[in-house]
Amino acid sequence: MKIIAHIFNDFPKKFGIPRQSGIIDSLQGRIVFEPEYRNPEAIRGLEEFSHIWLIWEFSEAKRDEWSPTVRPPRLGGNVRKGVFATRSPFRPNPIGLSSVKLEKIETDPKLGPVLHVSGADLMNGTPIYDIKPYIAYTDSHPEAVSGFAVKPAEYLLEVDFPDELLGKVPMEHRESLMAVLAHDPRPQYQDDPERIYGMEYAHLEVKFKVAGTKLSVLETTLNSKP
Amino acid sequence: MKIIAHIFNDFPKKFGIPRQSGIIDSLQGRIVFEPEYRNPEAIRGLEEFSHIWLIWEFSEAKRDEWSPTVRPPRLGGNVRKGVFATRSPFRPNPIGLSSVKLEKIETDPKLGPVLHVSGADLMNGTPIYDIKPYIAYTDSHPEAVSGFAVKPAEYLLEVDFPDELLGKVPMEHRESLMAVLAHDPRPQYQDDPERIYGMEYAHLEVKFKVAGTKLSVLETTLNSKP
Repeated sequence: MKIIAHIFNDFPKKFGIPRQSGIIDSLQGRIVFEPEYRNPEAIRGLEEFSHIWLIWEFSEAKRDEWSPTVRPPRLGGNVRKGVFATRSPFRPNPIGLSSVKLEKIETDPKLGPVLHVSGADLMNGTPIYDIKPYIAYTDSHPEAVSGFAVKPAEYLLEVDFPDELLGKVPMEHRESLMAVLAHDPRPQYQDDPERIYGMEYAHLEVKFKVAGTKLSVLETTLNSKP
Repeated sequence: MKIIAHIFNDFPKKFGIPRQSGIIDSLQGRIVFEPEYRNPEAIRGLEEFSHIWLIWEFSEAKRDEWSPTVRPPRLGGNVRKGVFATRSPFRPNPIGLSSVKLEKIETDPKLGPVLHVSGADLMNGTPIYDIKPYIAYTDSHPEAVSGFAVKPAEYLLEVDFPDELLGKVPMEHRESLMAVLAHDPRPQYQDDPERIYGMEYAHLEVKFKVAGTKLSVLETTLNSKP
């Protein structure tokens, strides 16, 4: 399998990445092709599509062994489901599948065609194996029954983000950071209201805790740009 | 990349396979896991989903070189589009992506769990790398704009299938064979009404020609079961 591209976005770590694509539309990412694929001809016509598929590597979740069952975080972390019945990264082949919105295509003098996408659930630097157009008549099944998969909207948290802390967040990141927090970025369901979590988003470090359905931001620190 | 399963269906050759999944619902297939993955635990909960994703290998379309552009058959075969703007099998990584309906799950004493699916656009024996549940809230975008991708219904042919020929076709294959023919199984757009095509479906050989929007079946031969 050849890596054809990488995605670059504001998630330096896994913590906080939306659990599925399309949940937080304000999240922006750029897809940069590897030198061999940096050819405008290879994406000719792609601008006619509003959505694209990314087939990518769960590069942070590689394991030598596979387990037949996993415990989806959204089910509380204590219910076992078959790995092929989930989108868990811990699968025999660590392949991820995400549909994202194609916002625009830019041509960079050095990097060639760069795809600007939104809604991706990939970590910064994730390798991409394939890009395909999203074809509604074959890919879209609004009537599909999705079993135990829980809609994220059912889990929105109320976010208490004090003004003096929000003020430290660059304007362009406020909306998406608020959305990431509202969608409950905790890696597992936890019930300790005193536990303090830290996450990174863009060049920010954010500390918070969660009591019931309320998330309180405790601290925001802006790191210098790398 | 490990092969986790294979699909078995009525398409012994590429010719005639629908160009996308979900176009012909009456097409049935069985997914049989490789021995290592023949574990009912690995699909626990999958029965709660009506549709699943197959990530599979274009095993008949492997090439050492990749070309930045391809000529989609549906566009007449003479318009070039970027490989990443199409679902063409001839791509840097020969990975296919198909959503299919999960009809039922059977447990075979020898083969373990067998998934019965419909609507697949895969050839008999195609290796499968991954199976994921279809999650409507993240995978379904009915509003997506699909550019130059042409809806198959716009291309339905009128099928002239003489009764004496149709009579040779086993009852259980008639509906799906008619559908395959109506969807124009010719590999490329062709304009020669005298050209005779032959295709295999299940244990049948079917000869036909196409004039304009009318397909005429000329011969059906039932092969002995292998």
